[in-house]
Amino acid sequence: MQLIVEKDYEAMSQSTMTLLLSKMIQPKKVNMAITAGNTPKRTYELLVEQVKNKPHFSNVTYFNFDEIPVFDEQGYGLTMHHLNRLYFKPANISSDQIMQMTPYNYLQFDDMIDKAGGLDLILMGIGADGHFCGNLPNTTEWQDKTVRINATEKHKELLLNEVGGDITKVPDYWVTMGPKSVMHARHLVLFATGKSKANIIKQALEGPITLDVPASILQLHPNLTVVLDEDAASELTKK
Amino acid sequence: MQLIVEKDYEAMSQSTMTLLLSKMIQPKKVNMAITAGNTPKRTYELLVEQVKNKPHFSNVTYFNFDEIPVFDEQGYGLTMHHLNRLYFKPANISSDQIMQMTPYNYLQFDDMIDKAGGLDLILMGIGADGHFCGNLPNTTEWQDKTVRINATEKHKELLLNEVGGDITKVPDYWVTMGPKSVMHARHLVLFATGKSKANIIKQALEGPITLDVPASILQLHPNLTVVLDEDAASELTKK
Amino acid sequence: MQLIVEKDYEAMSQSTMTLLLSKMIQPKKVNMAITAGNTPKRTYELLVEQVKNKPHFSNVTYFNFDEIPVFDEQGYGLTMHHLNRLYFKPANISSDQIMQMTPYNYLQFDDMIDKAGGLDLILMGIGADGHFCGNLPNTTEWQDKTVRINATEKHKELLLNEVGGDITKVPDYWVTMGPKSVMHARHLVLFATGKSKANIIKQALEGPITLDVPASILQLHPNLTVVLDEDAASELTKK
Amino acid sequence: MQLIVEKDYEAMSQSTMTLLLSKMIQPKKVNMAITAGNTPKRTYELLVEQVKNKPHFSNVTYFNFDEIPVFDEQGYGLTMHHLNRLYFKPANISSDQIMQMTPYNYLQFDDMIDKAGGLDLILMGIGADGHFCGNLPNTTEWQDKTVRINATEKHKELLLNEVGGDITKVPDYWVTMGPKSVMHARHLVLFATGKSKANIIKQALEGPITLDVPASILQLHPNLTVVLDEDAASELTKK
Repeated sequence: MQLIVEKDYEAMSQSTMTLLLSKMIQPKKVNMAITAGNTPKRTYELLVEQVKNKPHFSNVTYFNFDEIPVFDEQGYGLTMHHLNRLYFKPANISSDQIMQMTPYNYLQFDDMIDKAGGLDLILMGIGADGHFCGNLPNTTEWQDKTVRINATEKHKELLLNEVGGDITKVPDYWVTMGPKSVMHARHLVLFATGKSKANIIKQALEGPITLDVPASILQLHPNLTVVLDEDAASELTKK
Repeated sequence: MQLIVEKDYEAMSQSTMTLLLSKMIQPKKVNMAITAGNTPKRTYELLVEQVKNKPHFSNVTYFNFDEIPVFDEQGYGLTMHHLNRLYFKPANISSDQIMQMTPYNYLQFDDMIDKAGGLDLILMGIGADGHFCGNLPNTTEWQDKTVRINATEKHKELLLNEVGGDITKVPDYWVTMGPKSVMHARHLVLFATGKSKANIIKQALEGPITLDVPASILQLHPNLTVVLDEDAASELTKK
Repeated sequence: MQLIVEKDYEAMSQSTMTLLLSKMIQPKKVNMAITAGNTPKRTYELLVEQVKNKPHFSNVTYFNFDEIPVFDEQGYGLTMHHLNRLYFKPANISSDQIMQMTPYNYLQFDDMIDKAGGLDLILMGIGADGHFCGNLPNTTEWQDKTVRINATEKHKELLLNEVGGDITKVPDYWVTMGPKSVMHARHLVLFATGKSKANIIKQALEGPITLDVPASILQLHPNLTVVLDEDAASELTKK
Repeated sequence: MQLIVEKDYEAMSQSTMTLLLSKMIQPKKVNMAITAGNTPKRTYELLVEQVKNKPHFSNVTYFNFDEIPVFDEQGYGLTMHHLNRLYFKPANISSDQIMQMTPYNYLQFDDMIDKAGGLDLILMGIGADGHFCGNLPNTTEWQDKTVRINATEKHKELLLNEVGGDITKVPDYWVTMGPKSVMHARHLVLFATGKSKANIIKQALEGPITLDVPASILQLHPNLTVVLDEDAASELTKK
């Protein structure tokens, strides 16, 4: 594991952006699955500056790694909606550089990735509950590839927030790359910011590997980079 | 996962030898942990023909990945004793190309590997009980690095065989690279031969990931090659 | 430069075969350009044993790197004719794994290679005159990509031998990957056998880089492996 | 060849910095030879922001690739003097991360690089006369490794500028990695800015390979990245 601790969110975002860009700048086809959510906001702002309208980044194909079936007016699910907003639109990414996982094609998604040559990098955040991608505690098993997960009542409470508090929009399920699909990528980048993530980061990186803290499985990957700000790293024993 | 199915033990041994040699022939320092046991017997015979007295293979450093504290007259533990017999002696490998894990240095072993630049390859067999290296069912946890394992009465029955049936020689413990140490190698090669391994191979590669079948964790490695003869592959669904 | 010196032709052929096989056994698409001629005869015999009817080598695409427009009954040029005879037929290589350069498509050949992802390896011999591929002394310039070369009277004398002494069959030209196309491959393997090659090997590897000895340019490649038997290496200063 | 054309010096500097950083951010030892001169001024300013006081970049070892024997008060030659000023001092690089080539150790320099594991990247500019590193037209041959070059009267005129116009300081010679040493690096990055470089860039990248334009040899490298602003790229045929 490569651990990069930066002093604050800005520096952490800069380092994460550099990791993405260093993969993208290679003169060959590159496949990356990237996260929506709040953590990457600044990373993507910095990345857009570097990537927008640069033809030498047309070698990159982007994937989403989960999807929540709440669709916007263009028909995109919640994850793709946010990826469009945070990165694909501002960076002016061509639609033929995006391979979309949907609730309808998720069973073919692992094959799609294999045929594309496998993922070179996955950028992931971590949830306060230890989830990565859509792998919430005890929803997937280590051997799962891309799967559909039925939402329990507790999940629906969490999802209520994601859909703006409108209970009629809360979906019954979501789809996600499972632990096995994620672990098969050649490089994993996990990033986190803030004191609120310090304890779960410690559990995920230094605690036992358990389905109660799904991100703990990432410890086993031979090529994992963790980028933290000092707050998120503050409970780690070894820095 | 790359799955190579060969028609018989001879062809499986040839393919395994090629995988080792293809790693070794690079013009840079290469670190490999290799297995003792019965499965590699022919692989090592073939490898010795290629490697013996060839100075361009002096770039390779060899590691053992477990050790049983039953010492021969030269002071080697059981695993090193067999590696000496099967490969190091016949291939005339210089002692400065061998980094030995012992019951006395096992706590420093992961650091030794890190300082050497990490392992490029581990060659492993699988036990009928699903063990890999010294990770017998429910003896290690996924997050374990190199550890000491205390032998239960059941383990001692198994070990009795290893020490030639002499009950006075059965040790109380052994040391082994744990799942985390193994998963951190850049390339894993798992090989097996014969009908007697067919069912455990199926469980390990296609079944759930569980401490009851330790080798099942290898499914998650992004660069795993499995070499089987047709008998060992005979229960796999996908070939 | 990685220099491998083996005691005789058999051992040199074995090492060359291992270099090819180590590239081929990767679980990804692999592109190799390989030589016809006498030197690879034993290499290909050994390779056929390893490759024939093994579906896990269907990832390899083969290229010829030159062609002489003397066609056999199937319409293959002289280089392809010999590659078919020495390797493709005995190894039972599927025609969709072969990308053929011909006198008619040579101007598109560099683009074909680029689109296929570039060459992972070129296996080349060396001529007594220092030629590599079809780059005879002072026929190509360092910056040449795949080109057509018009045969002089002196070349026609050499070609007479290639066409079995039948002067009516001697062609006026040939096509070849030029120095620039060759140097762009990711790994170059140059092999040679016998006392008769010792002096030109010395010139090519230790002498000045000059169009009089075209293979001297290979000195500049960052990933060149040279495999020699002791006779071919006998004039080298550094071994 | 990977060609990156950016709209201006600022964007070109940003892309060059990214290329350096993408090599540096790997979790392993990295060896880079970097250029002094005017072109990298902004690249290094941007790089200093990313690297200064970041312990996770202590894996990088820096090399100079030439030296002019005009020494400052600390005893550094002219190239090292400028590298100190432009990058090493502002980035607070530890002296044990710098392997210095001097007029006194240049004969050992290629061996030093080999023992360090070879160069991962060389960052080079191009002179208006087509020189790269200290390879001025017709001063070195393609097969030269690190060499000493005796200054002619014409060279002394050029050097007069480098030593601030003080004719008593003009040296009689300089040392430089030759073409062969440079070509053996795993990745070459050539960058240029401004209309004044447009013609020589065209000659170097699209013209014949000739000792009159030493940088023309870089065309043959299998992993060359060229970063230009639009002015420097303005005479290229293919963009």
